[in-house]
Amino acid sequence: MKVIVAGTVAIDDVKTPKVERTGLMGGSAAYAAMSCSFFAKTRIVGIIGKDFPKEHITTLENSGICTEGIERSEGDSFYWSGEYHENMDDRTTHDVAINVLEAYEPKLPESYSDTELILLANMSPRNQLDVLNQCSSAKYSIADTMDIWINHERDELIELLGKIDLLVINESEAQLFMETRNLVSAGKKLMSLGPKNVIIKTGEHGSMLFGKNENEFFRLGAYPLEEVEDPTGAGDCFVGGIAGFIASQNQKSPSFNDLKSAIARGTVMASFNCESFSVEGLSSLDSNKISERLNQLLSYTQI
Amino acid sequence: MKVIVAGTVAIDDVKTPKVERTGLMGGSAAYAAMSCSFFAKTRIVGIIGKDFPKEHITTLENSGICTEGIERSEGDSFYWSGEYHENMDDRTTHDVAINVLEAYEPKLPESYSDTELILLANMSPRNQLDVLNQCSSAKYSIADTMDIWINHERDELIELLGKIDLLVINESEAQLFMETRNLVSAGKKLMSLGPKNVIIKTGEHGSMLFGKNENEFFRLGAYPLEEVEDPTGAGDCFVGGIAGFIASQNQKSPSFNDLKSAIARGTVMASFNCESFSVEGLSSLDSNKISERLNQLLSYTQI
Repeated sequence: MKVIVAGTVAIDDVKTPKVERTGLMGGSAAYAAMSCSFFAKTRIVGIIGKDFPKEHITTLENSGICTEGIERSEGDSFYWSGEYHENMDDRTTHDVAINVLEAYEPKLPESYSDTELILLANMSPRNQLDVLNQCSSAKYSIADTMDIWINHERDELIELLGKIDLLVINESEAQLFMETRNLVSAGKKLMSLGPKNVIIKTGEHGSMLFGKNENEFFRLGAYPLEEVEDPTGAGDCFVGGIAGFIASQNQKSPSFNDLKSAIARGTVMASFNCESFSVEGLSSLDSNKISERLNQLLSYTQI
Repeated sequence: MKVIVAGTVAIDDVKTPKVERTGLMGGSAAYAAMSCSFFAKTRIVGIIGKDFPKEHITTLENSGICTEGIERSEGDSFYWSGEYHENMDDRTTHDVAINVLEAYEPKLPESYSDTELILLANMSPRNQLDVLNQCSSAKYSIADTMDIWINHERDELIELLGKIDLLVINESEAQLFMETRNLVSAGKKLMSLGPKNVIIKTGEHGSMLFGKNENEFFRLGAYPLEEVEDPTGAGDCFVGGIAGFIASQNQKSPSFNDLKSAIARGTVMASFNCESFSVEGLSSLDSNKISERLNQLLSYTQI
């Protein structure tokens, strides 16, 4: 299956206790598309400004990603600047400039019309619905989201949940959205809003998968990393790996077992991402390294 | 193998958002011994005061636990009173009275002298060392600990780590003790203090196991519970299940794979414990329910 990854494409400045880097490629779609591209033919949808470095587009294209769906606008690119603290878990956002995203209305190129799997990486639910509505060929759809949309575009997010197959959301956002601290309970409540499956990401602890059937529950720990260089985009790489793996299976609808296997791939991709800044960890990857780490992850989690 | 479980035996008052209960049996040894007793012949070591309800001793004995190692003192029993808040994770300790524990010097009954596995449930490292030194027949030893001992009996705790086979410690305590937020790093540092294996408990997320070999790492998610009645003692039941399972295998030294299987049993026992107050969830258990939940846990975590 061919995959559309729609979301943000950004310029990031990232500071960690050890290093400070500026002008990095960031954004949910950039990370997710890079990760997805290792498993399936990937097409990106997003918007950039006139200041967006050409080499970042080259990075995407060198990974085989079709960038025709990236709109070039006269404004400035979406910009984020943040700092990770000692524990590499808490972060402070120093600056966010929406810029070109403000008036963005996603348009899918004609050439994307045979896409069968659609990944709506984190962006406004309004934009996610726009993309979904333009993609009548899609057989399977996945969406990610974040706290800002839960707080400010709740109705659109709920509308979206009624139309997608798989929701991927992180722990604190699931708790905020469903107003419960208990993640099992939050997952079940999210399921009742429409998706066929829900995945709650629990950061360094891994993730949980929920299904319609009472017995359909699965959890997998994250790949253990002693050093985390830059966790930005880990969640996007996780969902990108999931989308790519599902697409690579070429089935109309993934089974619960397919989703378990997809989560293992997403987990591996997220771990590589955390070992380098921006998408650099993914740029230097190959399928051998992915298989090797996948086997390692299985030995670390399977009895 | 026969198991000694040494630790505290307490009277607990527990308040949750829904219920308040007083005069419950608590203490690390009570919980751990109850859990262990489903897998192996279990002998408890601890001290109680004149106020300790007889029915609690009956509860232990009804589970087949030998209580000869419980010293009856003229003082008052160790007492803890605490409250769990809405999320059932944060708790406030309202009152702790050390009472009979203050001057406690554990003495193992003669009849315990053929014990081969020793579980040093949470109590002072000084007492844990005392018990260990009296048990020359022990072929395998496990210890749990907590923040108070890391802060106040650090030297004794480090001495203990040099003498045991397996350390079981929770997430925040491992971070405090090893002065690092990263759990993989904390686990490796704890290993360097002497134990053959280290398990870090990560609460609702499960646990991680470390071994001497670089590839010896394992993590397993907790059993998913939508409702938690009373999490007191979950960590003790976890380690009790581990000790019991290892003892039931009758090997001189458990392999890394044996420890993985032991963790699955501990995880199941901890989940049953969380579903009821005090040791009540364990009192009504049987081996069929344990096997059934073990299979469920495996389906929830294995690909």
